[in-house]
Amino acid sequence: MKTVGTLLFPGFELLDVFGPLEMFGALDDEYRLESMAESAGEIESRQGMKAIADIALADAKRYDILLIPGGRGTRHDVGNEALINWLRGHAEASSVVATVCTGAALLARTGLLDRRNATTNKASFRWVAEQGPNVRWQPRARWVVDGKYFTSSGVSASMDMALALISHLSSAEKAQQVATYAECRWNCDPNDDPFCHASALGDAMEPSQPA
Amino acid sequence: MKTVGTLLFPGFELLDVFGPLEMFGALDDEYRLESMAESAGEIESRQGMKAIADIALADAKRYDILLIPGGRGTRHDVGNEALINWLRGHAEASSVVATVCTGAALLARTGLLDRRNATTNKASFRWVAEQGPNVRWQPRARWVVDGKYFTSSGVSASMDMALALISHLSSAEKAQQVATYAECRWNCDPNDDPFCHASALGDAMEPSQPA
Repeated sequence: MKTVGTLLFPGFELLDVFGPLEMFGALDDEYRLESMAESAGEIESRQGMKAIADIALADAKRYDILLIPGGRGTRHDVGNEALINWLRGHAEASSVVATVCTGAALLARTGLLDRRNATTNKASFRWVAEQGPNVRWQPRARWVVDGKYFTSSGVSASMDMALALISHLSSAEKAQQVATYAECRWNCDPNDDPFCHASALGDAMEPSQPA
Repeated sequence: MKTVGTLLFPGFELLDVFGPLEMFGALDDEYRLESMAESAGEIESRQGMKAIADIALADAKRYDILLIPGGRGTRHDVGNEALINWLRGHAEASSVVATVCTGAALLARTGLLDRRNATTNKASFRWVAEQGPNVRWQPRARWVVDGKYFTSSGVSASMDMALALISHLSSAEKAQQVATYAECRWNCDPNDDPFCHASALGDAMEPSQPA
């Protein structure tokens, strides 16, 4: 069994978390899901719906896949030194680290993306890029792979990246089976990014100032 | 503000719930989200991740949109008379009723879909159809609209339907803005169903016997 550890924080974006977990969770004989946050228990998403963090950060072990979602809460947590230190240690210890959307801002603050290729959502691209000035940010990419670091574009791109991860860690056939199970039209080309010019609209919908 | 009430039950499918709520939640000045279950509090999804039901069924009011997800838990709940009775009353009182995946089985058991067109996921199509022998089940449809009843195919189709609902209740422009915000390639044609022949594989992944 491979373990997928998902970081939750107040203001996480719902689909950044539950899109990928739908995909990994479809193979429950291969992937075990665990979620963690500063404290175990209720965490409110950006949309208001609440999820449960299974464990506290202090109790987290090493994960095969560490998943870092985005969401408005990242605006606050890029300045959360304890969280960034936790993330640095656990990202170094994990076999694969995957970020979604503005989750890349948190990982960038650890320094682990420095001199690596990475992407993030198009709506908040500039703000995320400022969190890691030494990262090679790719403005046109559905997702980017650089070594063990997988970084996806915004929200829905998380599912395309999750299927790519399943293809990488299990098999392409398994990824296709999961896509069919979830009735998901998998965009399996990481360079096919229809939203690379969407930033103007996005900026209007997600404020770039700290929440 | 339009209220979106989402029914939760043990064994709900993650993306059936959080895909649509990502879309409605992107317009938080137009849609207010509330979730309900037999009791308020923790509810475990089919994948194991837990969410919080805001209120108990007994405390639910009338909703503008009543959202009924699918998931393995529907196998049990089609026989849950109290839940089906609650659903009948609240579906009748709601302006719009939307089901995802095997959620259509629960609504079919109320009788409200009788002599109406509807669809469900392709993996469990036969089992769902058995729950409503007088429903005009459509085997090829990404989603179906019949009066105030919107029924979607499996899992990911929920997001296409949610955007169609936003187009219907707000505007096509708003739906396109949300799709862009979520970096979602919206399949806006309800007849474009690439998974209508997927049942053989699906049956292998979701057992058709009660969980």
